[in-house]
Amino acid sequence: MTENKSQVIKNDPWFGSYASRAEGMRASEIRALFAVASRPEVVSLAGGMPYLDYLPFDELSELVAKMLREQGTKAWQYGSAQGDPHLRERILDIIRLEHITDAQADDVVITNGSQSGLDLITRIMCNPGDVIIAEDPNYVGALGVFRSFQTEVVNAHMDADGLIPQSFEEAIKTSIAQGKHVKFLYTVPNFHNPAGVTMSVERRPQILEIARKYHVLVVEDNPYGLLSFEDKTYPALRSYDADNVVYLSSFSKIIAPGMRVAWMIAPPGIRQKLVLGNESAILCPPNMSQMTISTYLDNFDWKQQIKEYRGMYKSRCDAMDDALHTYMPYCQWNKPRGGFYMWVKIPDGLDAKAMLPRAVTARVAYVSGTAFYDNGQGADHMRLSFCYPTEDEIREGIRRLSTVVDDELSTAQLFGTTSIEKH
Amino acid sequence: MTENKSQVIKNDPWFGSYASRAEGMRASEIRALFAVASRPEVVSLAGGMPYLDYLPFDELSELVAKMLREQGTKAWQYGSAQGDPHLRERILDIIRLEHITDAQADDVVITNGSQSGLDLITRIMCNPGDVIIAEDPNYVGALGVFRSFQTEVVNAHMDADGLIPQSFEEAIKTSIAQGKHVKFLYTVPNFHNPAGVTMSVERRPQILEIARKYHVLVVEDNPYGLLSFEDKTYPALRSYDADNVVYLSSFSKIIAPGMRVAWMIAPPGIRQKLVLGNESAILCPPNMSQMTISTYLDNFDWKQQIKEYRGMYKSRCDAMDDALHTYMPYCQWNKPRGGFYMWVKIPDGLDAKAMLPRAVTARVAYVSGTAFYDNGQGADHMRLSFCYPTEDEIREGIRRLSTVVDDELSTAQLFGTTSIEKH
Repeated sequence: MTENKSQVIKNDPWFGSYASRAEGMRASEIRALFAVASRPEVVSLAGGMPYLDYLPFDELSELVAKMLREQGTKAWQYGSAQGDPHLRERILDIIRLEHITDAQADDVVITNGSQSGLDLITRIMCNPGDVIIAEDPNYVGALGVFRSFQTEVVNAHMDADGLIPQSFEEAIKTSIAQGKHVKFLYTVPNFHNPAGVTMSVERRPQILEIARKYHVLVVEDNPYGLLSFEDKTYPALRSYDADNVVYLSSFSKIIAPGMRVAWMIAPPGIRQKLVLGNESAILCPPNMSQMTISTYLDNFDWKQQIKEYRGMYKSRCDAMDDALHTYMPYCQWNKPRGGFYMWVKIPDGLDAKAMLPRAVTARVAYVSGTAFYDNGQGADHMRLSFCYPTEDEIREGIRRLSTVVDDELSTAQLFGTTSIEKH
Repeated sequence: MTENKSQVIKNDPWFGSYASRAEGMRASEIRALFAVASRPEVVSLAGGMPYLDYLPFDELSELVAKMLREQGTKAWQYGSAQGDPHLRERILDIIRLEHITDAQADDVVITNGSQSGLDLITRIMCNPGDVIIAEDPNYVGALGVFRSFQTEVVNAHMDADGLIPQSFEEAIKTSIAQGKHVKFLYTVPNFHNPAGVTMSVERRPQILEIARKYHVLVVEDNPYGLLSFEDKTYPALRSYDADNVVYLSSFSKIIAPGMRVAWMIAPPGIRQKLVLGNESAILCPPNMSQMTISTYLDNFDWKQQIKEYRGMYKSRCDAMDDALHTYMPYCQWNKPRGGFYMWVKIPDGLDAKAMLPRAVTARVAYVSGTAFYDNGQGADHMRLSFCYPTEDEIREGIRRLSTVVDDELSTAQLFGTTSIEKH
């Protein structure tokens, strides 16, 4: 059903009547791929779907039924625009794992997935033309939101230790010198999507110090923080600074995305506007989804469940790393310490976007790096996800992908457009 | 938990950093009331909560559990930005009851409640300063959305037969003469919230003809259409004109609002942008909520259930009408033919907004008419809801309310500020 989104509607009688912001709306490269990539014969290294088969579906279904029988008139009724108070209390236990110990339930706002959180914070902070500093590359869903509010995204660079403080400060200074309003830094500090890197603990206070110096808000998007492959979690930026950080996280990757339940933690003035924004955008988040999540948290050992997920995703990441070493040693990548994604540099002269249809023909899908930029950059990278396919599927997927890359490389060598030696 | 929304945050360090659109955000008068009005000793004639106790909670809970056991990996996973195809098919059966026979599942977009639908259509159509023509009074939730996108709302008047075509045309002409862009008419044709009136069948094609003449889109918001107290439904505006109408409806009033599942039907160009807008705002609607609604539709006689609701709401409406005749004959109102609301004109010289705290002290709540205007009008009306309280509660609520109005009226007579004789 997604194909119609990329169709051009002919003779639209409302052409010319739309808001300027609607002109920036376009189908994400990831979404447009879903229809093809979801065919069973294709190994998809494209999507960011978590693997759900470990969930205790049978017991959970019974407990949800019990909750609906006993609390149906609440679960099926309108709720609070800020979100269910019981769930907001439970979230305090989760964020404590990332060293956030001073938050109260009243600081928490439940959103319809973190996508809605990104929409809300941009909505309340940014006029058209305002600057958002974002990492380079940047999460595709955030780029879409920033574009739809007609903001200007200014890139700050990352290395293997995440966002580079000097590059962040430089981006602020350049924007200010141009007379622009820098509204916030958007950062995914842990197991970055798509770059896979993690902001080092040393850099975290440095980033915050720069933000405070220029009175720039920090929007910390952290869906993957608990999915570390080491036996530790990183302290959230929010744990250092309650006044200047808006923190976003979600149940989508640690439990399940089908509820669309995520949360934000924000300082009081911003939180008040977020609640009003939530009310204006969706009236209130679904009680049933929230109470289903609470049922899970109240009845299962969710910390143990997350540990199992960590182990599973780590094995899949290892499988992908091994397969890349075996089949595509001429590529470059940083092995992630958690999360879902590997950001793989392909040889010079190759174009990940142009190559994609050939890969799909070879029954493997990925996301071209171009999806994570607004300026046409990124064709030298692929984002490979190891979250959903099994280890065997990952190995087979990388093998199939290597046949395509090998072919492209042979052609490039033939025409002298690459300096890389095929293995 | 809602109180904090009306608190003034002192010394907000981000004051001055917000987007211009955030300045228009304020807590709705209805929401601010919820905390008081929901105390058990208060008869609330204020909210728009449907009465859910007739739902077959026990059987439904079992069926939802079965659905989760058998289709858990779908229900708990990400879904389509346009909404679940099966549910979109089922919706075609529902809208047929309102004479919409030419729509396809691909014309339907699932939204997070109709609130989200209103947000999306305004987002894609309106630049700041663009004009939306709206009925006077207007649904409070729509006003909030229109304000947050910095549009200008121009009122068109209603009488007992709903929106007056001449007034609609006048509003368009005046706006065009001022050089403004009129983007759409926002109308609630059936059992209007708050006015209680219904657009006559004669007027429907007239309104559409005017809209076409000036190339103004019609946004038809129809949550109550199936809750008629007569044994008929009115033909939707959309049933006359597929090209110029965006139709919104919802499961909130006919099944349950706790799922936050609503839908829009739109012509292709607009629908394509709505899907992209949905993706940008929430990524996708919750699969679990959508599949729960489908489970209900697939397994229960939902048409019979709606008939029962009609009978129940009709009895409640009759009880309120009787009680108003008995206790407050000096007020004026049109008895609605369906829906949830009675729009009651109070005697001259009385102020529904100023009177509200006294009413709450007398243990009855309503919404002041001022909530349904953006310009301070409406203090001469109260919106009384008959959807949630029982018939006995409604009678007792109106009796309590009459003691307050009687007192106010005596004072007004004493000071000569009213011409109404107390009964």
